[in-house]
Amino acid sequence: MDVPPGFDPTVILWLNLAGTFVFGLSGGLAAVHARLDFFGVLVLAAVVGLAGGVMRDLLIGVPPATFRDWEYLAVVAAAGLVSFFAHSTLERIDRGVQVFDAIGLSVFCVTGATKAITSGVGPVPAVLLGAITGIGGGILRDVLLNETPTVLRQELYAIPALLGAAFAVTAEELGSDSAVLPLLGAVTCFAIRMLGVRRGIDMPTAPPARRRRRDD
Amino acid sequence: MDVPPGFDPTVILWLNLAGTFVFGLSGGLAAVHARLDFFGVLVLAAVVGLAGGVMRDLLIGVPPATFRDWEYLAVVAAAGLVSFFAHSTLERIDRGVQVFDAIGLSVFCVTGATKAITSGVGPVPAVLLGAITGIGGGILRDVLLNETPTVLRQELYAIPALLGAAFAVTAEELGSDSAVLPLLGAVTCFAIRMLGVRRGIDMPTAPPARRRRRDD
Amino acid sequence: MDVPPGFDPTVILWLNLAGTFVFGLSGGLAAVHARLDFFGVLVLAAVVGLAGGVMRDLLIGVPPATFRDWEYLAVVAAAGLVSFFAHSTLERIDRGVQVFDAIGLSVFCVTGATKAITSGVGPVPAVLLGAITGIGGGILRDVLLNETPTVLRQELYAIPALLGAAFAVTAEELGSDSAVLPLLGAVTCFAIRMLGVRRGIDMPTAPPARRRRRDD
Repeated sequence: MDVPPGFDPTVILWLNLAGTFVFGLSGGLAAVHARLDFFGVLVLAAVVGLAGGVMRDLLIGVPPATFRDWEYLAVVAAAGLVSFFAHSTLERIDRGVQVFDAIGLSVFCVTGATKAITSGVGPVPAVLLGAITGIGGGILRDVLLNETPTVLRQELYAIPALLGAAFAVTAEELGSDSAVLPLLGAVTCFAIRMLGVRRGIDMPTAPPARRRRRDD
Repeated sequence: MDVPPGFDPTVILWLNLAGTFVFGLSGGLAAVHARLDFFGVLVLAAVVGLAGGVMRDLLIGVPPATFRDWEYLAVVAAAGLVSFFAHSTLERIDRGVQVFDAIGLSVFCVTGATKAITSGVGPVPAVLLGAITGIGGGILRDVLLNETPTVLRQELYAIPALLGAAFAVTAEELGSDSAVLPLLGAVTCFAIRMLGVRRGIDMPTAPPARRRRRDD
Repeated sequence: MDVPPGFDPTVILWLNLAGTFVFGLSGGLAAVHARLDFFGVLVLAAVVGLAGGVMRDLLIGVPPATFRDWEYLAVVAAAGLVSFFAHSTLERIDRGVQVFDAIGLSVFCVTGATKAITSGVGPVPAVLLGAITGIGGGILRDVLLNETPTVLRQELYAIPALLGAAFAVTAEELGSDSAVLPLLGAVTCFAIRMLGVRRGIDMPTAPPARRRRRDD
């Protein structure tokens, strides 16, 4: 498991499962809104809950761990079922879902970066892999729903994930045994993400191109 | 190779190649209709014929087997060529193509699940990997053609694949040496799929959401 | 590293980095035109610069190499930054970008095929993997931007990549120590690609289907 220094493995497992569940809700709700069928809702819940970690593991070069773990599979199935049958209720606590999603992002970027750096990749790829763990599922969700990924277009979503991952990698690089840095990373990620949500902050885009279309 | 208990490896190879060919036709025809060029038709044939098995192998954590096998590559190339040059003829036997596609699905979910469970993953992931072997190619086809995957939106396609895979996994879990359960799995998958096609059965969708669009 | 026979590893590294940079520019510019934000421009630059090699490594069954190499990551970051801040300038040298892109394609198909064949796959998969190294990034770019991949629809792009890869594989199969064949492969790829660009040559499509829509 991807346990940052100074943490109890059981706590990390529960945090990871909680993050997977809320990411699964995000995927399942998006599927309901896109009018996918029952199976599609389950698949989207699984994709958003699991795909970030699968991408990370494939890029590290190890067999995807969560996919063979019944706990993670049960959690995304539950998220899909809740999305399908209780989406009206979930929509009423929209801000709540965003808070949970920010928690998931914070957990995943820290634990993903920890797994990457302890697998022997360098610090820079480890930070990137931590961020991919957090945002990969949402990217695949948007690709399957035939949209350009939100995280590439707007909002403050990748920056907090990169920052959180950087704290976790720094902790490992310093050989730290304390939970302070990973915890600080998760809190920083959460705070910046929620600030972006509340203030509606977007990343800047380049000034529009002048009369010309994309080639090649 | 992914040989379920009680089967002759040569029979399984031929069934797998036949399944790959008809899946390749499905991809090639979709590419012709989407006005892709000659190369695009070959690629789509290869994607639908091979991608399900490649996804399964990546998720298991073994090198993708079919991709380095000239027999499978020759079969998808042939499927692409037939799609490109004989698509008018193929369209006239539309119902025939659906029968072949159902055969491909039945073969792939059983052999895929067998490979997964014999690779050491648990029974639940093995059933999922069997289904992914059957439906993964079609999902990637739709993503490349810029559509939301059909299997996530409508039709009875995943359920029969999951059922067929469950029979194959049960056979392995029981330590069975007989071909009965895998064969029953393939027949069940085929029968339900064809029933769905003939009756036009779709999976249910959730009731439409009330005034609100997808966020995050 | 993927060093074809008769070449200096340093030269190959520099050519690979140069190819990665121009592919990164192509991705970054596409992202700017699609109005992605700053993060999206960096991601698209990384995707087009690195994804072809990552796909090749996953299909071979080895951990993706470039992703853990700071040189490649620095190069795609630089390509993303240049795309974001200097896209107006880059657009004025459009033909130049196409020349660089053709260089990248030529380098990648030869070095990708060399890595594949020396990893123990057969000659036919090695040629395909060489071509995938060259065109995979562009396919993923178009999927993320919600378009059907250009390389599947039009232009002479895959054929030169396949030819270049075939030269590199032939060199390895002959046990050649000379740089002649890989060099000839790269030059052939470059020449055919530029001929296609200048003459506007497209691959043929199948004649349009008569009254019928795609099924599956």
